[in-house]
Amino acid sequence: MRLHGVIPPVCTPLTDDGEVDVASLERLCGFLLDAGVHGLFAGGSTGEIGQLTDSARATVLSTVTRVAAGQVPVLAGVIDTGTQRVIEHARAAGKLGADGIVATAPFYVRTGPAEVAAHYRAIAAAADVPVIAYDIPSNVGYKLPSALIAELAHEGVITALKDSSGDLESFRRVLAATGDIGFPCLTGSETLADLALAAGAHGVVPGLGNVDPHGYLRLYDAARNGQWNAARAEQQRLSGLFTIIEVPDTTRIGPISAALGAFKAALKLRGVIAHAGTAPPLLPLLPAEVDKVAAVMADAGIPGKGRK
Amino acid sequence: MRLHGVIPPVCTPLTDDGEVDVASLERLCGFLLDAGVHGLFAGGSTGEIGQLTDSARATVLSTVTRVAAGQVPVLAGVIDTGTQRVIEHARAAGKLGADGIVATAPFYVRTGPAEVAAHYRAIAAAADVPVIAYDIPSNVGYKLPSALIAELAHEGVITALKDSSGDLESFRRVLAATGDIGFPCLTGSETLADLALAAGAHGVVPGLGNVDPHGYLRLYDAARNGQWNAARAEQQRLSGLFTIIEVPDTTRIGPISAALGAFKAALKLRGVIAHAGTAPPLLPLLPAEVDKVAAVMADAGIPGKGRK
Amino acid sequence: MRLHGVIPPVCTPLTDDGEVDVASLERLCGFLLDAGVHGLFAGGSTGEIGQLTDSARATVLSTVTRVAAGQVPVLAGVIDTGTQRVIEHARAAGKLGADGIVATAPFYVRTGPAEVAAHYRAIAAAADVPVIAYDIPSNVGYKLPSALIAELAHEGVITALKDSSGDLESFRRVLAATGDIGFPCLTGSETLADLALAAGAHGVVPGLGNVDPHGYLRLYDAARNGQWNAARAEQQRLSGLFTIIEVPDTTRIGPISAALGAFKAALKLRGVIAHAGTAPPLLPLLPAEVDKVAAVMADAGIPGKGRK
Amino acid sequence: MRLHGVIPPVCTPLTDDGEVDVASLERLCGFLLDAGVHGLFAGGSTGEIGQLTDSARATVLSTVTRVAAGQVPVLAGVIDTGTQRVIEHARAAGKLGADGIVATAPFYVRTGPAEVAAHYRAIAAAADVPVIAYDIPSNVGYKLPSALIAELAHEGVITALKDSSGDLESFRRVLAATGDIGFPCLTGSETLADLALAAGAHGVVPGLGNVDPHGYLRLYDAARNGQWNAARAEQQRLSGLFTIIEVPDTTRIGPISAALGAFKAALKLRGVIAHAGTAPPLLPLLPAEVDKVAAVMADAGIPGKGRK
Repeated sequence: MRLHGVIPPVCTPLTDDGEVDVASLERLCGFLLDAGVHGLFAGGSTGEIGQLTDSARATVLSTVTRVAAGQVPVLAGVIDTGTQRVIEHARAAGKLGADGIVATAPFYVRTGPAEVAAHYRAIAAAADVPVIAYDIPSNVGYKLPSALIAELAHEGVITALKDSSGDLESFRRVLAATGDIGFPCLTGSETLADLALAAGAHGVVPGLGNVDPHGYLRLYDAARNGQWNAARAEQQRLSGLFTIIEVPDTTRIGPISAALGAFKAALKLRGVIAHAGTAPPLLPLLPAEVDKVAAVMADAGIPGKGRK
Repeated sequence: MRLHGVIPPVCTPLTDDGEVDVASLERLCGFLLDAGVHGLFAGGSTGEIGQLTDSARATVLSTVTRVAAGQVPVLAGVIDTGTQRVIEHARAAGKLGADGIVATAPFYVRTGPAEVAAHYRAIAAAADVPVIAYDIPSNVGYKLPSALIAELAHEGVITALKDSSGDLESFRRVLAATGDIGFPCLTGSETLADLALAAGAHGVVPGLGNVDPHGYLRLYDAARNGQWNAARAEQQRLSGLFTIIEVPDTTRIGPISAALGAFKAALKLRGVIAHAGTAPPLLPLLPAEVDKVAAVMADAGIPGKGRK
Repeated sequence: MRLHGVIPPVCTPLTDDGEVDVASLERLCGFLLDAGVHGLFAGGSTGEIGQLTDSARATVLSTVTRVAAGQVPVLAGVIDTGTQRVIEHARAAGKLGADGIVATAPFYVRTGPAEVAAHYRAIAAAADVPVIAYDIPSNVGYKLPSALIAELAHEGVITALKDSSGDLESFRRVLAATGDIGFPCLTGSETLADLALAAGAHGVVPGLGNVDPHGYLRLYDAARNGQWNAARAEQQRLSGLFTIIEVPDTTRIGPISAALGAFKAALKLRGVIAHAGTAPPLLPLLPAEVDKVAAVMADAGIPGKGRK
Repeated sequence: MRLHGVIPPVCTPLTDDGEVDVASLERLCGFLLDAGVHGLFAGGSTGEIGQLTDSARATVLSTVTRVAAGQVPVLAGVIDTGTQRVIEHARAAGKLGADGIVATAPFYVRTGPAEVAAHYRAIAAAADVPVIAYDIPSNVGYKLPSALIAELAHEGVITALKDSSGDLESFRRVLAATGDIGFPCLTGSETLADLALAAGAHGVVPGLGNVDPHGYLRLYDAARNGQWNAARAEQQRLSGLFTIIEVPDTTRIGPISAALGAFKAALKLRGVIAHAGTAPPLLPLLPAEVDKVAAVMADAGIPGKGRK
């Protein structure tokens, strides 16, 4: 498994009762695979992993691996606060067929560098599948130092990086420090995907890729072929579409709730999923906000049937 | 249950294999009860709740409730990222005999005020036991607004507050806004306990109370009797003892690891627990650091047998 | 000069043209002196020092020293980004009759502990008057470590502390570490004044003391006489009055602008100053906000003639 | 004046007495002009503007404008806390021949968006020369919102942007929102210069450009000619050179002190300036650190005579 290309962090559709909406999730996975994505990431922040019970996490992962059916690698988020808790998720993910697990630094209790390194080493020793480092300081309150990522990569403790830090300077330092071993570096940025690829990134993991996988695939192909003007034009269109996340009123809900709710609203408007509800405590968009999302989509050339 | 007095957040002793050391935990609970504490809080941050598996959490809580045997209320931390996950912990805690559950704001995904309120309302609706709000911005990245705490208190959604924010101004606003309903407000501060009580706090939940419960009980009794000079003198001695948390090298481990490791080292030196190990990824103190802890303890009049 | 008691950070009234309103400033100083304050602090954050030109700063300081006329010590803020700039302000302040200068850590460029120490040592060596350390991390992005404050105090580099950090734990560590030399520690907190005094603080420097100096003087006297219940009752009334700073809409202006504008609005309502304008870029309160300030004042027993 | 190209923020050499070393500053300006830079920025953060007195600022600016002699535009930093103070600097800079002034958001007192907008409007109204917005949240604690920058650009209040935020996503939003008016957007990033240019930036303002202006000019020319592989290769070499800022021990001095000290050490090693001292409170590099800087320079192909 050498990760590359477009690997969307799959949204988790829910029924109106708050259960995983398996039929919608199957449709979403099919939609992404038909578009040609190179992998699926189940249980990322975009997948509302932090809001799902262990049972729901298992339903999600088994659904995604079943639909993927070996066509592309499936990554599983193993997001939790401490090492032993992450290891339990890692073992469960391995049994459910994940091809790799995606683990953040410890959180809730902020730890030091030696502890973060010990955390990844313990997970890698206990897991049956490769470990991907997930650098997401906005959620865990800790930026993985580029030197630590490079050290763990050379040790073989981690086999790839998903960088959602927004810090392209650090991302480049990792690329430079791991170029000798071809360590796959994936960016989580929706709006710097072309630049990250120009800098040498191996792939992209954009939440917006749920809504418009074809756009990110065009961008990725253009970049791989050195057609940087085409990549930039596609990026600009996608960045316009990405403003759906600015629609919600963030004095009411948090900015991540706003983004996740907007992605789901857009997927419902596209007819891919049946319900746009989010997992508690995240609150979904208001009807007037959904209408604005539809308008932004139309501007970016993405069809929506309209709400309802 | 009207919470008040000294309610230590009980440390979780571990065996050298990383399992819950039930015998040591029993001794620790006995030590605290013998000292006269007014309650026990199992599974707080001090109890390394974030680093324990669900199975280990259950072992801890069932041990603490068994030893407490109804003499004092037992509170259970239900620390997790999202609402449904917290509710699962809350139900488990109810079955294991907790008299109340202690819940933080959602974390990992940062949410807005309406979502935090919805979070607490959903937990209270689903739980069989009273909900105590746990305000710990250093760990969850969100300060519970004093107005929201007061609103949820008046609604009956939360029945008490544990304030580990270090923000005595906000704590006082809660006290002022809930004085009419006698809402119990407990401070988590080790070094401002006397002042918090002078401001009207109903009790204290100090991590250092594991190491020196008698000191906090003397402080509490002095404050209740209006003997403020005596309370202050006791506080000064305890604040000196609390410098054990400054002993570890925090370029190696995080400041919370430092505190938890120091508490456990001190408890082992006192002969209360058998091992001073911490739960991964937290790293324990180095031998030279343990010696320094022993010296600080001696200065504060706390006997330690010395490291063995 | 042994600083103690109530030392308000004097507001800077401005004319409608944005010049220092000397007549209003004289009335304000007279109002404070008549109330019995123990000192005057010209050019604090409350005095909008950061928004005043050097010429305006000089007008303010010369006015305050003239009105004080040696009855009480006058402190002068020497707020600037780098050491040499602060030294220039310090020398000017000495020439204008300041009895002490109040200096923050360097800001704009964030420096390390050795540089902060060098900063204070250089100022003390160059200034003709004693240096007071001003700990205000919200404005300068750096918390003065309690150990560094104590070290500089013992060296004689700084002769007092004004603590506007809101961190009472750190404040207490300074008190404990400097008790042997009687180092004056003043709190800038409006709402924890009684508790800070209970902890051993030597005085208070509350911005709200411009609006209600008599209240803080009653509080201080009660505390000095060990009448803690009276001190607490007065504190509660003052904390209610302090909610005038929550009146403005902080999506429009910053929280400090809100506080400074509210203080000035209240002083105009009391008839002490002629205009309530703030120094650019700070925006003053809107008329409807001034009406709400008047209502809060009435609740706290402070008369206002009403806006005119 | 349409800003573009490579515009280094000129370092301020000092004598051992702490005075501006005019002869060295002349040599540095000559070195940069000979290399072919498109402008000079006097009094940026790299120029230690925050640590210089007004008198020293004037010496710097008059020296730079004298050496530039109209060959390239000279920008002057007008860094201060409040509007009137900035306006005084702006007027002085205009008199000394600056072609534009570079102003940050207000700082020390954190203000709201309406106040930041008012700040820039007041400066533009009072200044005789065009205003460039300087977005540097690490120093002022406030990120200029991309929508506000675009609004002020369309109003004509600001005529260019220097972006030192490190936030390439926001930088791109400004580029997209101002493409219709050709608003010059310059990046302050040393290590993302090629990517910023690929994204449409009009120029670069790298502190490291003092040390290796030829490298940034090669990079800029390659980018302008669409030779992205060449631009990236040059960027990689420069990013390697930029690790001189990681040499100093940042438990002793701050990270900005480390960078400024390293730039000056490198300029002395190159023989451009005579002394490597920094302005108080910034502390310079230790001798052993200078040796390491020399080694990094050698790896990047930059000759240094060796220390002393």
